Amino acid sequence: MKICRSIQSLHTELPAQAGKTTGFVPTMGFLHQGHLSLVRRCREENDLTVVSIFVNPAQFGPAEDLQQYPRDPEKDIALLEKENTDILFMPENDEMYQQPFRTYINVEGLDKMLCGQTRPGHFRGVATVVLKLFNLVCPARAYFGQKDAQQAIVIRQMIRDLHLPVQIRILAIVRDSDGLALSSRNVYLSPAERQAALSLPKSLQKAAVLVSSGVEESQVIRESMQKELDRDPLLATEYISIVNLQDLQEIPVIEAGNTLIAAAVRAGRTRLIDNLLLGDLSC
Amino acid sequence: MKICRSIQSLHTELPAQAGKTTGFVPTMGFLHQGHLSLVRRCREENDLTVVSIFVNPAQFGPAEDLQQYPRDPEKDIALLEKENTDILFMPENDEMYQQPFRTYINVEGLDKMLCGQTRPGHFRGVATVVLKLFNLVCPARAYFGQKDAQQAIVIRQMIRDLHLPVQIRILAIVRDSDGLALSSRNVYLSPAERQAALSLPKSLQKAAVLVSSGVEESQVIRESMQKELDRDPLLATEYISIVNLQDLQEIPVIEAGNTLIAAAVRAGRTRLIDNLLLGDLSC
Repeated sequence: MKICRSIQSLHTELPAQAGKTTGFVPTMGFLHQGHLSLVRRCREENDLTVVSIFVNPAQFGPAEDLQQYPRDPEKDIALLEKENTDILFMPENDEMYQQPFRTYINVEGLDKMLCGQTRPGHFRGVATVVLKLFNLVCPARAYFGQKDAQQAIVIRQMIRDLHLPVQIRILAIVRDSDGLALSSRNVYLSPAERQAALSLPKSLQKAAVLVSSGVEESQVIRESMQKELDRDPLLATEYISIVNLQDLQEIPVIEAGNTLIAAAVRAGRTRLIDNLLLGDLSC
Repeated sequence: MKICRSIQSLHTELPAQAGKTTGFVPTMGFLHQGHLSLVRRCREENDLTVVSIFVNPAQFGPAEDLQQYPRDPEKDIALLEKENTDILFMPENDEMYQQPFRTYINVEGLDKMLCGQTRPGHFRGVATVVLKLFNLVCPARAYFGQKDAQQAIVIRQMIRDLHLPVQIRILAIVRDSDGLALSSRNVYLSPAERQAALSLPKSLQKAAVLVSSGVEESQVIRESMQKELDRDPLLATEYISIVNLQDLQEIPVIEAGNTLIAAAVRAGRTRLIDNLLLGDLSC
């Protein structure tokens, strides 16, 4: 695996691979099996697999966990070596946001709902860094996790609107044995918070059971989820949203193949998200 | 010359030219010698010359002249044929802004000064369409006129920030025999307005004389320009700005090689801009 710690180094390495189909997995590091499932699929579908590790400051709010965000580059490198990654791109912040930095991508209308309600500027930061990374890596395909479903929808819209020659693949959520969706932020949880947090996947399992039993009214599904999330006082619900996949508007009745049931909670100071996707976000 | 009226048609045509260096001249049509100077330079420096004609609605304000903007596609085609243009891309609005369209590029801080003061959203529209066109045409070099100096500075910043593999060339202002900078909008002017409008280039000539005689104080230059612009009651000054080329901030003393002296006026209902560039905007 070639490790490129600068744009110059990436620019030197990529042309040597000309003619190969490039697959790309952008990450913020502290890799878990969710990330590695993306790398594996990328390896299967492309000649060249590029992974980036970059904790992107533009997608963190001023009161968020940029400084504390977990990092373990040595372990990440070992994991990616084992997956036969071809190129690992680990740029420095100073180079990615060379001052004065002024250009931001806004995917208007999709950035205010769900997580956007409490994370203003988050999707602007995500869209900006993903476009920058696409321009640097020039992938034919890029791989994202379904856990960040809103992110996937924002990026899908950006790709369409800006005519980017990239296909995206959205891969299923990978869960721990207790059901909690894997997230680099799970490391923040105390044992009691983790126990409480299990209500999040449980609430979505309840939603799945209702949907498969024919329930279509969003309100019924939402109430069942809320009841589950209200079980433990350590857990605070941020939102439960049942929306369509085009504009993320709340829908009173779920649409087969076109619905996202998503929730965000706080367990102590840790924010967790999870979702149930009725449809496909790849394009 | 191959005329592509759809993205599909452009996508069919471009790969046939693979391996050639592509130069690109984005325009809004109603071509004049200023545009054609860009096309000629593009021809000299590249294997393949692509010109686009697209009156971009996103860069017009609601009270601006989108509907009236002059159009003459037959004449434009004839002019571009004569210049041996290889590909003319003339997309439809519905295809460039396929609904729902949501993704916009903001080059923050450079979009509020000079023309941005009276044209909110203008540079957001410019940056967005230029990035879209770059993504469709994939040029190695793109050509813009110095008359729209702020546009050039915004695009230069966007290219840097987003790591776009495009060089831009900013070519000198082409003027009519009476000194007025060529602009598609000059067609709006009545004979009396046109006569009044000549104070705009004259004011910049005065600035040039002052600068070459060693005057450095912006205030002195601005006052001399204002005096010239105040000559004719048909002319209303919108701004006179003396700014640096990095952040477009007003500077009290001009900096050799790093100063833009720019003005905007209204002659009747027609808005005109012109400038004197002390420096180079190509990159």
